[in-house]
Amino acid sequence: MEICTRCGKPRESIFEIKCKRCGGPFKYVIDFDYKDKIRENFPYVKEWISLGEGNTPLIKFQNVYLKLDFLNPTGSYKDRGSVTLISYLHQQGIKRIAEDSSGNAGASIAAYGALAGMEVAVFVPENANPSKLKQIEAYNAKVVKVKGSREDVTRQAENSGYYFASHILQPQFRDGIRSLAYEIYRDFKQVEYVFLPTSAGTLLLGVYEGFKHLLESGKIERMPKLISVQTEQVMPVCASLKGLKYNPPEKVTSIADALVSTKPFLLPEMLTVLKETGDCVVVSEDEIKEAWKYLAKHGILVEPSSATVWSAYQKYKVNNAVLVLTGNGLKSLSVNVK
Amino acid sequence: MEICTRCGKPRESIFEIKCKRCGGPFKYVIDFDYKDKIRENFPYVKEWISLGEGNTPLIKFQNVYLKLDFLNPTGSYKDRGSVTLISYLHQQGIKRIAEDSSGNAGASIAAYGALAGMEVAVFVPENANPSKLKQIEAYNAKVVKVKGSREDVTRQAENSGYYFASHILQPQFRDGIRSLAYEIYRDFKQVEYVFLPTSAGTLLLGVYEGFKHLLESGKIERMPKLISVQTEQVMPVCASLKGLKYNPPEKVTSIADALVSTKPFLLPEMLTVLKETGDCVVVSEDEIKEAWKYLAKHGILVEPSSATVWSAYQKYKVNNAVLVLTGNGLKSLSVNVK
Ligand SMILES: [Zn+2]
Ligand SMILES: [Zn+2]
Repeated sequence: MEICTRCGKPRESIFEIKCKRCGGPFKYVIDFDYKDKIRENFPYVKEWISLGEGNTPLIKFQNVYLKLDFLNPTGSYKDRGSVTLISYLHQQGIKRIAEDSSGNAGASIAAYGALAGMEVAVFVPENANPSKLKQIEAYNAKVVKVKGSREDVTRQAENSGYYFASHILQPQFRDGIRSLAYEIYRDFKQVEYVFLPTSAGTLLLGVYEGFKHLLESGKIERMPKLISVQTEQVMPVCASLKGLKYNPPEKVTSIADALVSTKPFLLPEMLTVLKETGDCVVVSEDEIKEAWKYLAKHGILVEPSSATVWSAYQKYKVNNAVLVLTGNGLKSLSVNVK
Repeated sequence: MEICTRCGKPRESIFEIKCKRCGGPFKYVIDFDYKDKIRENFPYVKEWISLGEGNTPLIKFQNVYLKLDFLNPTGSYKDRGSVTLISYLHQQGIKRIAEDSSGNAGASIAAYGALAGMEVAVFVPENANPSKLKQIEAYNAKVVKVKGSREDVTRQAENSGYYFASHILQPQFRDGIRSLAYEIYRDFKQVEYVFLPTSAGTLLLGVYEGFKHLLESGKIERMPKLISVQTEQVMPVCASLKGLKYNPPEKVTSIADALVSTKPFLLPEMLTVLKETGDCVVVSEDEIKEAWKYLAKHGILVEPSSATVWSAYQKYKVNNAVLVLTGNGLKSLSVNVK
């Protein structure tokens, strides 16, 4: 079952993208105990349309653990959400989908859509990273560049006539990210801190639901603190959480080009989660560059957006922490990190 | 123990790069039964300097299995060899290394060398893929472009004054590739055909040694056929094996830019293996492009060099086959596959 996170109304069909009553997002309701075979925790997927996502390495690096989720098939953690969403939509007979994305989600949805034999259109802001657009096109998706704000991009995707397979709104996308929490639990047991780059909120909310499920199933003793990391340019979550002054920029120019949600739709849901068990940290451009270089000089090549968690960790220096590295640095070799 | 593959002479020290007696390459001698914990099959590694390599997905795709070895940390199967070689050299106190490579091996050695705190210089042909050079530089290695033939590149690396950590000559590199055979065995048991892009020979020879070990340990009943795949431009192995006429080109312009060994040093070793249990197939540029597009349209983005195995498989259409996809397509988005 899926219900509105804001008013609790059940979702009527897959064609109800936002709650008809209050406009809120839907979430999948978990009404069973955690199962050790991770896939069994996603009972709405009957047949997995899989590219081999998940089971990414967790490596010890200095005093911390790095979850190398950039080693997913399309180079980002989004594959965890795409596999559940696309498998589910395929079962529902959906054949043509639209997505709005600045890059990684678009590439991931395009790849899984392609494997499912769907026609895929990805709507992107005009200033999206060119390597990511090439990747989306390689998967045979149609890339539509949209002038204007991030909201304009979303509006065009919504009104495209294709089924709107939004990674932000579709509950089966966000829900698929639970697998990340399960793997951290499987490999690590009780973790105290998880650092997550935060933009639209799918990663934070998906990981939260996974740990919540583990807690309610008696597998962990307490929730880890979920530390959302944002950039100085795009920090709506940190600003709201901490009452900081924040003016969203007209155009995001940060090297963290996957962190672009200046007005995230899922903001209320993120604030609820962080108030319960988390915090939010802002990192500067210089800190991101330093972190990116530091990781690369140790053999770990990630997107600048992912390096943010290393910068944030420097401000905490806690033990028993996992940093989630979300995007492959091979996607960003054209980005100048000097 | 390590012995010369050609005359059997034992290796005296890590400073004997080629056999002093006959000029041949050394190989590591396996004198123990296969162990299910894969790492225990590499007893010369005491402490793993690891980026989380290996345990890549094996997925069913149509009638065949794809081993997604491009999902290794630096985007190629070479990480399996780098982890064993660099861990071993680190134990031996080596601090400065040189490598010659057209890209993937250089990136991999650079990453593992960086993690081990080594100074790394990578010697490359001038026409190497620019994305791959950016990747090598990101890991803080020095990239030295060399004019002239592939042999000139090797000569400069050999005479650089750094320890020559050649992925082709160092037995602990080639030997590390055994883990690929072990994982195929673990996930698949008795495989009959394994398709491998073939250039310098490290993949073919490493995989062969792994299966041989499994056979001699009673884990598999017979050796799989190892199908080497080469391009029309670079086909010395197929030419020698089948007595075909072949003139190496002055300059390799194939989109399969990781398959550039026109005169591979390990040719005699490769021929021995293929005569025992294999074959060699040549694919054309058009076939590679078709294969690349076909895989990408199904969500699988690899390097053109890796797509060759799909072309080759079309000529066989056997059941019970594993195709090894060696390099990540994110490295080749600048290559024009039209
Ligand atoms: Zn509602
Ligand atoms: Zn010899």
